[in-house]
Amino acid sequence: MKIFTDLSTSPELLEYLREGIAPHELLLPAQSGASVLADVPTDPLMQEADIVLGQPRVDAVLSSPKLKWLQVSTAGYTRYDTADFRAAVKEKGVPVSNSSHVYDDACAEHVIAFMLANARQLPRNLKSRCANGSAEWNGLRRDCKLLQEQSLLIVGYGAIAERVIELLQPFRMSITAMRRTVRGDEKVKIVTPDEVSAALAEADHVINILPDNAESLHWFNAARFAQMKPGAIYYNIGRGTTTQQDDLAATLKSGHLGAAWLDVTDPEPLPDDHVLWTCETCHITPHTAGGQYDEARVLIRHFIENLRRFEKGEKLVNRIM
Amino acid sequence: MKIFTDLSTSPELLEYLREGIAPHELLLPAQSGASVLADVPTDPLMQEADIVLGQPRVDAVLSSPKLKWLQVSTAGYTRYDTADFRAAVKEKGVPVSNSSHVYDDACAEHVIAFMLANARQLPRNLKSRCANGSAEWNGLRRDCKLLQEQSLLIVGYGAIAERVIELLQPFRMSITAMRRTVRGDEKVKIVTPDEVSAALAEADHVINILPDNAESLHWFNAARFAQMKPGAIYYNIGRGTTTQQDDLAATLKSGHLGAAWLDVTDPEPLPDDHVLWTCETCHITPHTAGGQYDEARVLIRHFIENLRRFEKGEKLVNRIM
Repeated sequence: MKIFTDLSTSPELLEYLREGIAPHELLLPAQSGASVLADVPTDPLMQEADIVLGQPRVDAVLSSPKLKWLQVSTAGYTRYDTADFRAAVKEKGVPVSNSSHVYDDACAEHVIAFMLANARQLPRNLKSRCANGSAEWNGLRRDCKLLQEQSLLIVGYGAIAERVIELLQPFRMSITAMRRTVRGDEKVKIVTPDEVSAALAEADHVINILPDNAESLHWFNAARFAQMKPGAIYYNIGRGTTTQQDDLAATLKSGHLGAAWLDVTDPEPLPDDHVLWTCETCHITPHTAGGQYDEARVLIRHFIENLRRFEKGEKLVNRIM
Repeated sequence: MKIFTDLSTSPELLEYLREGIAPHELLLPAQSGASVLADVPTDPLMQEADIVLGQPRVDAVLSSPKLKWLQVSTAGYTRYDTADFRAAVKEKGVPVSNSSHVYDDACAEHVIAFMLANARQLPRNLKSRCANGSAEWNGLRRDCKLLQEQSLLIVGYGAIAERVIELLQPFRMSITAMRRTVRGDEKVKIVTPDEVSAALAEADHVINILPDNAESLHWFNAARFAQMKPGAIYYNIGRGTTTQQDDLAATLKSGHLGAAWLDVTDPEPLPDDHVLWTCETCHITPHTAGGQYDEARVLIRHFIENLRRFEKGEKLVNRIM
């Protein structure tokens, strides 16, 4: 088979990929893309591919005559997440998988880093030089919290949520998650979007891992923030578009929420004059939650492992369509 | 019985204590101490006490004619940790307990907050406004790590270490701990001080939870830092005196260690011209690891629960002598 990739990576890692997929043939575009998140132009070679790994354009996927499988090289898959695309790949019989497994662990550790940094007041704590017993010291110690026995709502139940739940198990938190459709195999109590108001009102911590699609646009808006418990902490490691950012800024400035920790914004980065930069309780990392040392190698290894499954007709990991 | 405390807390919490110990009588000093870490003068009332909760002077403990039990109100107990004091309370038949249980969870969550903040590069990440795909962004994502499958050495095995081990269980780290005397009921592989060099050389993360005593003074010095793995991360949530701070600064400046995260220093706070403030990879919180919302209430509850055990002749929690 011929396997096309538009991954932008080092010659060493492309060689690792080439060796890993042998005896299949690797097709590379003449010019590689600048970023996995950018919309790279399509190389005509893709039309010869049986399998594609990367972030190809929707039209290129749908016009590929030989395509048998697409593995998206990110966890997000906004451009493919439409009814038209789903129908078209179903008709062509092309399974679509993504690479969320590569990012699960890193995203889960990142959001728990956020939670603990907030609970232990690290931004204030690391700046303070206060003396034991001083008023500032007593205030800091009093504002430090434990995650233990607090409540958490995860909005968007998937592989990252499952890893978050697993990592938090010894913290004895009370965890609920929202999922569009309950499947019955979830590891925590599930609420549907219709039932989410009560869950929002009860949670000390709310993690947003919603994907970016028409339904999720500005899902967290003034009304939803108002439903949240006073002092609750909001985390977003999903997509920036799912938060109405002016509403979030107003909510933070009112003091209704305790803090927000965002790894994603809309756009990225936020312009220097954006109101969220003026919110003292808003903490932003620049879309690095999925990052890890040797990330590209882990991504390629995930593809090679899925290729072995594809060859044997086994179930693909992270199949999304 | 008469119970004396030099705890410095609110009238409400003293009332909570008074109600909790009923029918026993609460004795309070005329003037309360400024801080649990300060050496408060002894009130003559203490000489009438059967039980003492707090941080009394060593001479006052040893001269108390009726004393049957001392519960120290901190986790550290440096002033009592001498051969002379141990022998004297043994001869008097006075058990000594501390309050480390109150601080276990908070200290454990604090040091895991440090570990994850380091792994996810939060200090750099929270300052960056870099664009997806930029050189800075690629560098940040590459420097982000997972705790998963890394190795950890805990120096000082006690209640805090046990909670750290429990909380890290789903992170699948390889954990070893150093303890003066192996008891056989430890939850991880134990090395003695004689065997610690090899363990220091293998660990990606080293947590210092040593108590402050003659043996532990400057235990972490140039020689021990040199034994550590290049790029390893050093954490101290024990006592500041256990680290030779000039050696730590030199080690950090040489780049041999990846970073240091300290909740304790010697003195506290460090003077503004201290060399550790000039180390970019040194992150310091001002002895707040044990802090938590409602800490004083948790401390008093721990004493009341131990009092019930004492009344029944049961084994005291956190007995240290």
